[in-house]
Amino acid sequence: MTKEKSSMKYTKKTAFEAADAFGIGAPNDTYAQYFIGQSFLKPLTEPEKAPVFLANVTFEPRCRNNWHIHHATKGGGQILICTAGEGWYQEEGKPAVSLKAGTVITIPAEVKHWHGAKKDSWFSHIAVECPGENCSNEWCEPVSDAEYEKLENAE
Amino acid sequence: MTKEKSSMKYTKKTAFEAADAFGIGAPNDTYAQYFIGQSFLKPLTEPEKAPVFLANVTFEPRCRNNWHIHHATKGGGQILICTAGEGWYQEEGKPAVSLKAGTVITIPAEVKHWHGAKKDSWFSHIAVECPGENCSNEWCEPVSDAEYEKLENAE
Repeated sequence: MTKEKSSMKYTKKTAFEAADAFGIGAPNDTYAQYFIGQSFLKPLTEPEKAPVFLANVTFEPRCRNNWHIHHATKGGGQILICTAGEGWYQEEGKPAVSLKAGTVITIPAEVKHWHGAKKDSWFSHIAVECPGENCSNEWCEPVSDAEYEKLENAE
Repeated sequence: MTKEKSSMKYTKKTAFEAADAFGIGAPNDTYAQYFIGQSFLKPLTEPEKAPVFLANVTFEPRCRNNWHIHHATKGGGQILICTAGEGWYQEEGKPAVSLKAGTVITIPAEVKHWHGAKKDSWFSHIAVECPGENCSNEWCEPVSDAEYEKLENAE
């Protein structure tokens, strides 16, 4: 497959909205303090009706969440189902993983990590909140521009 | 939106494979006895690494699973994340629901139901197995051709 064909990048919001079948939803104001750039949130299940919460999370180009940890004493963590565009997932101390529609990432509890869009593309993933015991999220420092730019160079 | 633009039907396997970013995987031999027609299964998480099991399930045109029930004394059931093509979901005693990429269906435990492809399209969904207590599946009678053909007429 050529480089062109394997790319799923979207620089324009309108074209990206057509590619993201699960919908972009509303500005993610509740968690905005833990993100650099604009993100959007679209819940896909109703908490009182489904035992697993799913939401489609959309990141504008360059948008990423802070380093964070999903704590749990049993189970927990998150699964990312990438639905449109291209992004990054990185665990502390490991190389970043390139994401595109079709990529599925299992994030274990207690692992410090971040995720977000590439510099030149909108990106969406469905976040699956894995049930567990004593679950909580710890939000840490932002992913600095210097860290983020390095990833783009290493792609 | 016109009827043409809203259609996401695929009659050819090759075109459908290009549209289904999560992959079709292998013939679903383990559960073939509970399906009419050919289905395929692609696991997306590793049972020992993720507390929630996800698999992409693909149905050839006309393929559907038997009526079945996800039993659980707490939690349980299944969530369907529709990823490509067009299909049907039906709960006993209710009209069938038309499915396409972007549709998300929450199937409660203890509800008798079936799902599968439309007559004229391949179809895929990610099945999210919701954790619960005392989970088991009960497989019931097939969806007869007479029942299935009625749905096509009512679309």
